[in-house]
Amino acid sequence: MSLQPVLIGGQWRPAQSSGSFTAEYPTTGERLPDEFPVSAWADCDAVLNAATQAAAALRQVAPEQIANFLTRFAERIEARKTELVEMAHAETALPKAPRLVEVELPRTTNQLRQAAAAVLEGSWALPTIDTKLNIRSTLAPLGPVLIFGPNNFPFAFNGIAGGDFAAAIAAGNPVIAKAHPCHPNTSRLLAEEAIGAVRESGLPPATVQMIYHLAPEDGLRLVADPRLGAVGFTGSRAAGLKLKTVADVVGKPFYAELSSLNPIVILPGALVERGEKLVEEFSGSCLMAAGQFCTSPGLTILFAGEAAEKFIAGVKAKLESATPGTLLSSGVARNLAASVKALQSAGAELVTGGSALAGNKFANTLLRVSGAQFLASPETLQTEAFGNASLVVMARDAGEAEKILARLEGNLTGGIYSDTNGSDDALYEKFAPLLRARVGRLLNDKMPTGVAVSAAMNHGGPFPATGHPGFTAVGIPASLRRFGALHCYDNVRPARLPAALQNRNPNGKMWRLIDGHWSQGDVVV
Amino acid sequence: MSLQPVLIGGQWRPAQSSGSFTAEYPTTGERLPDEFPVSAWADCDAVLNAATQAAAALRQVAPEQIANFLTRFAERIEARKTELVEMAHAETALPKAPRLVEVELPRTTNQLRQAAAAVLEGSWALPTIDTKLNIRSTLAPLGPVLIFGPNNFPFAFNGIAGGDFAAAIAAGNPVIAKAHPCHPNTSRLLAEEAIGAVRESGLPPATVQMIYHLAPEDGLRLVADPRLGAVGFTGSRAAGLKLKTVADVVGKPFYAELSSLNPIVILPGALVERGEKLVEEFSGSCLMAAGQFCTSPGLTILFAGEAAEKFIAGVKAKLESATPGTLLSSGVARNLAASVKALQSAGAELVTGGSALAGNKFANTLLRVSGAQFLASPETLQTEAFGNASLVVMARDAGEAEKILARLEGNLTGGIYSDTNGSDDALYEKFAPLLRARVGRLLNDKMPTGVAVSAAMNHGGPFPATGHPGFTAVGIPASLRRFGALHCYDNVRPARLPAALQNRNPNGKMWRLIDGHWSQGDVVV
Repeated sequence: MSLQPVLIGGQWRPAQSSGSFTAEYPTTGERLPDEFPVSAWADCDAVLNAATQAAAALRQVAPEQIANFLTRFAERIEARKTELVEMAHAETALPKAPRLVEVELPRTTNQLRQAAAAVLEGSWALPTIDTKLNIRSTLAPLGPVLIFGPNNFPFAFNGIAGGDFAAAIAAGNPVIAKAHPCHPNTSRLLAEEAIGAVRESGLPPATVQMIYHLAPEDGLRLVADPRLGAVGFTGSRAAGLKLKTVADVVGKPFYAELSSLNPIVILPGALVERGEKLVEEFSGSCLMAAGQFCTSPGLTILFAGEAAEKFIAGVKAKLESATPGTLLSSGVARNLAASVKALQSAGAELVTGGSALAGNKFANTLLRVSGAQFLASPETLQTEAFGNASLVVMARDAGEAEKILARLEGNLTGGIYSDTNGSDDALYEKFAPLLRARVGRLLNDKMPTGVAVSAAMNHGGPFPATGHPGFTAVGIPASLRRFGALHCYDNVRPARLPAALQNRNPNGKMWRLIDGHWSQGDVVV
Repeated sequence: MSLQPVLIGGQWRPAQSSGSFTAEYPTTGERLPDEFPVSAWADCDAVLNAATQAAAALRQVAPEQIANFLTRFAERIEARKTELVEMAHAETALPKAPRLVEVELPRTTNQLRQAAAAVLEGSWALPTIDTKLNIRSTLAPLGPVLIFGPNNFPFAFNGIAGGDFAAAIAAGNPVIAKAHPCHPNTSRLLAEEAIGAVRESGLPPATVQMIYHLAPEDGLRLVADPRLGAVGFTGSRAAGLKLKTVADVVGKPFYAELSSLNPIVILPGALVERGEKLVEEFSGSCLMAAGQFCTSPGLTILFAGEAAEKFIAGVKAKLESATPGTLLSSGVARNLAASVKALQSAGAELVTGGSALAGNKFANTLLRVSGAQFLASPETLQTEAFGNASLVVMARDAGEAEKILARLEGNLTGGIYSDTNGSDDALYEKFAPLLRARVGRLLNDKMPTGVAVSAAMNHGGPFPATGHPGFTAVGIPASLRRFGALHCYDNVRPARLPAALQNRNPNGKMWRLIDGHWSQGDVVV
């Protein structure tokens, strides 16, 4: 069987490989038919050289052309929807409907179109002009961006089509996608449409490139290479931190989305007021996509007592009556079992579940631990159990809950449920600042799953949820700013300025900070 | 002799010290009269605890109160101007006039006032509202900020009064200043005024704290401590990278301004057209403050030939006729001598200077090296010689110049001089993109010294000039964004939102991105 080719310099060409791999059908464990290359360093070197050329060429390209690429790519994805959904379903076991066809694919094309609109409008780069001193600055492309997509979103976070991809391209950078080895064929189909759209829109051929797999040492070398401008990584904490370390040494922006427990506090009044509804909401959020979301609720703090016991009993019943979903891969199943074991080893008790099932499944799992026990082993009891498992921490009182909150690591989200008649308000005031400091997105009365593609979204948070608390991976225009370098022009002659910094507003729509005032107008001379 | 106290938790109190140090008069090498503590870890622990409390308290403080502090601090600095200038002059040997009294002190108070205006206006935090989904986000304080000030700006970059200080406070964070041990008394006077302004404005007492010195291991521990939100560092590359490494491991934003050669390319037409004027400009920029600026021109690329030789001869004459300035400390003098030796060891030849003089001075120094020689040892020949020394690289032709530009490290600035009749334009087109990618601020026909406090300024650049290419240390409002974490509120009840995200625009002036449109208005419900 011959190896699938890689996408380098605008061409599908045979990989210079150091090995090969196959993916498996998660539902059956059978091997998928195609074999894919593990690229050797020679492939990395080739993509870096081609991306360097593309980065230079892209600086001469009009925003309209980049926007046109993003739009055409979205259209081509839609035209190939059926095949993409079939393939992604086969490779990930995620349900075709509603998940893949009604939610994730439209989300992906929506992101590409929002990115296209941001390119056309141009305000994302915060162009700033000081007319008196003739100093002008804007965010500008920072060079080729390497994107590692995760296993759990074959479309919307795919390195060749997802949010990081859209943001990096919209910011004017070529992308080198490292496909996730769990869904190589889905990535291949997306890459075919991406390169098709590149050709149609006349962008430099190496604007989008893709390789499938790398030896760990080549991954580290690739991240550290000076030809690379930045990295976007969504995946496991262990892999992400290794790559981040080598990026940090060479001062390279490394945008990581690593892991998150998404702690929830359900205050006593809310539990009394609407306990049954919360059982529904919570169980649904835990089981959605078999818990394989970055924002799945992994840790819930309750106040010990009757209402909490009732909540736990309710969730137990829900989890036991629901059919466990198929996990993304045998690796996910193994890691989930190991994580649940780790939680148990630190004193968490199983309420339900805890065992592996046939066909890449794991029993829907709920664990519980006392607040005192949590405070005795806060690190281990914050082990991420990626999948359909969740831990409840039973706080003795408000003081203990505060101590628990103070020991939380950085997370993407955190939520507080309170009642509607004010009896929880004093506790809210106490807890919200503690939780606020440890999360990127603070929710009220709402589960964390479902990350809206909104300009106001923050899909980010304090370390170790991500590598920098000021940036978001979802939400346009903010996500684009991750892939910009601040370029200042001091006394540069007018004709040599980029269009966004010339006196004339290039499109009449771009917001620019001119002498301290935001304006869509021209610089008046 | 008793040790000077440190400023912890709003009080001047005796340090828990592990040792002591004195500063010296740079002009004479004599010890200054006061003795200062090297703080032990107990002091660090105390400042961190106090700063944690202050950070929480500051979240409840109105913007007006923070702005009032910044303004009062500026006024108090002005009221004590004579004493401050005398002290800074004694400790740094920088000229009283114009430098300290007419340039640096007004720059410092100007920064504080601009920061106050940014706090009052509020747009720096990029508040963003999605009314349909009720998701709202803004940059918000990220926690106590530790600031290491450099030796070369006793006021404007001082950890207790300079640009990083103003930005961190304006973003709502308490500051822990680590004074530079070369000007401890100047820092003490500034801290006295800072804490006076804190008291007058009613801010939490530990909003500003200061320690003087630390053992290296305590510095690393302090930077890594989870109670600390971020670090601003201006100083040497060696010290900065050590601290950055420990910050990176714990995912803490570390804003470093490390070193920069500020390369300049003088194109052949410009050299012919206005060679004598360029000799003046260049020599003046090199010798300003004895070359002790982050933006001093340290590396100049010329095309070998008659005009270049004439330029070098002209600069040689200028440097030889100018009296060398006193350097900031004996350490600076030693490092400068070592750097010049390193450049010579890699093949650079002395045109003039190269030797230490009495009284902490160094002969005004120019070195030269061929392009071929530069390309043989590009790392060593990019050794920063902080002080009154500069290197000229003689490129054989445009191709060699391109190769040299491609080997440049990241810098704060880069400049190109071209003639006014277009004969240099083709070379400009070739070189500008190469230089652009390696610098934060690109200049035309202008020396890099003189960093205007402008909203459009970028005092930043690619690694190793700084740790992240997207941020600037100078220029308000952008410099504030370094010290903000992105806080998103999803479905949070209206009364619990920060003022900037409530429906009503809190001051009628704040720009907010509401449903994709920048607006100073209220959210219309």
